[in-house]
Amino acid sequence: MIEKYFSPLTGNGAPAFSLKNDAAVFSPKSDTDLVFTKDALVADVHFFSNDDPELIAERALRCNLSDLAAMGAEPLGYLLSLALPNKDLYIEAWLSSFCKGLENNQKLFKWSLWGGDSVATNGPITISITAIGETKKASHLTRTGAKVGDGIYVSGTLGDAAAAIKIIENDLDVAGSDFILNRFYKPFPRLKLGKALVNIASSALDISDGLIGDLSHICKNSGVGAHINQPKIPISAAFGNLLETKPEYNHLSWTGGDDYELLFTVPPENEKSLLNIPNCQSHGITKIGEIIAEQRIFLLDERQAEIRIDNKGYRHFEN
Amino acid sequence: MIEKYFSPLTGNGAPAFSLKNDAAVFSPKSDTDLVFTKDALVADVHFFSNDDPELIAERALRCNLSDLAAMGAEPLGYLLSLALPNKDLYIEAWLSSFCKGLENNQKLFKWSLWGGDSVATNGPITISITAIGETKKASHLTRTGAKVGDGIYVSGTLGDAAAAIKIIENDLDVAGSDFILNRFYKPFPRLKLGKALVNIASSALDISDGLIGDLSHICKNSGVGAHINQPKIPISAAFGNLLETKPEYNHLSWTGGDDYELLFTVPPENEKSLLNIPNCQSHGITKIGEIIAEQRIFLLDERQAEIRIDNKGYRHFEN
Repeated sequence: MIEKYFSPLTGNGAPAFSLKNDAAVFSPKSDTDLVFTKDALVADVHFFSNDDPELIAERALRCNLSDLAAMGAEPLGYLLSLALPNKDLYIEAWLSSFCKGLENNQKLFKWSLWGGDSVATNGPITISITAIGETKKASHLTRTGAKVGDGIYVSGTLGDAAAAIKIIENDLDVAGSDFILNRFYKPFPRLKLGKALVNIASSALDISDGLIGDLSHICKNSGVGAHINQPKIPISAAFGNLLETKPEYNHLSWTGGDDYELLFTVPPENEKSLLNIPNCQSHGITKIGEIIAEQRIFLLDERQAEIRIDNKGYRHFEN
Repeated sequence: MIEKYFSPLTGNGAPAFSLKNDAAVFSPKSDTDLVFTKDALVADVHFFSNDDPELIAERALRCNLSDLAAMGAEPLGYLLSLALPNKDLYIEAWLSSFCKGLENNQKLFKWSLWGGDSVATNGPITISITAIGETKKASHLTRTGAKVGDGIYVSGTLGDAAAAIKIIENDLDVAGSDFILNRFYKPFPRLKLGKALVNIASSALDISDGLIGDLSHICKNSGVGAHINQPKIPISAAFGNLLETKPEYNHLSWTGGDDYELLFTVPPENEKSLLNIPNCQSHGITKIGEIIAEQRIFLLDERQAEIRIDNKGYRHFEN
């Protein structure tokens, strides 16, 4: 299995030596730091077990690439653990398609398989990926540097991936559903933007738990709070279509995860540099709020009234 | 959960930053290579789900440390993915004990937690560890360098871990069973030996699948075969005791895995250097055979007759 499916994904020579050794060996460049991240995905928790395996692979790698993007790192390679149910015939076809997804991703993002292992399980398919990236020495983004007065920004549009899950679960038929589903299955890791934000952003992370949930990580680790202007939260045209028939999904743009867009803060003195980063417009950057001293997140409507946030979504307090 | 159980395992500052960022950052020394290995363990496949969680953690880390040992690398840090069933009360106690095992291991082997994640699963507990080690530049062991005439060596004793599984599964009562069980739960990664073997051994790996199975990896990757003298295979006194009542377990010393001893080959001109490595005797090194040109493994009895090997164990062909 390893020779047939995985060795071809390693390229020749180091680091993986075609998976012929106990471990991969990587020779770092002297002016670089290495960045490590690890994410596990479980069938029917993080993806649907009947999803196309090619898309499962793509999504698993893209989620990890997004963590590298949030550090401002360039991808180098990854290690993969696969726990697979013991159903041989099914698994052959599944693996072949899964590895096609890995291969497509590697070509697009110019990285490769460094190692890993495959084991049997009595439970659901479980995928664990360790992604390794590099930055210039001491040049990475963190979650801890947001300061009062910094602007709060996001890339792209929010709520699409959470809407995709609603579309799948409720078998909804909406204009633009292909776009929305693609946002779930093929989130686009903002690697170029992340790299460009080093020395511009005071903090950054990728949105995997939802805007408010992830913003609270930045606020907590930086010892600050935030004002977010809900009408400024960018949504896609397709998600806008969906909201016309399902206005109750509105909150997905601030509670829904899995978009893997970047959320970051920029000090006022760096705003000009932000607008000058290469292809700035292609990243769809939107300012949605500001860091404040009070250690709490306020989500504000168009009249600056607070939208109460709870785990299920929101309640609206009228003034 | 992360703050309570895992942050204390990271130490302060880099690489893990107390798990406050999306990823860990490591600044490699300029004269080093980094070594990466990844192993997954599934409950009731790789460990018993009712095992003491402290021992599950110890064993999971030690298996990965053994892969680093087999490369001649020094451990630096690890990333951990835990997929846990959603039974909160049980999981609190389980996690607390599991993290105690991680902590004990970190102190003994002087490495630390760099990152990872914890997810829910409907299936068995699944642990995936990525271990990172370092070597001096271009100074690591491989599986590909065995040459005709090289001696074949192992460290320690073989068959203990496989005997431990028999003892547990069949509820056997034998003298020395504590020793044997400990060999399964706390295999000792041969880190010092691995490091010492760089520039002495022509090939090396750690025995996780069984002597013959793992030797076949060296033979295949080096394009050679092997003679193994079965009476020379080192076994522990406790395993010897067990064989008195259970002689049918004899084959476990060459078919049983999980001992995590090193198997390595040494060219004749390096045998003297091997005997001169520091504390050589503490590693319990035994010469058990020789590399040959014919690409096949011969297991020979005390009269040099071949012991036929099959997957189930062995059959003995008398001359």
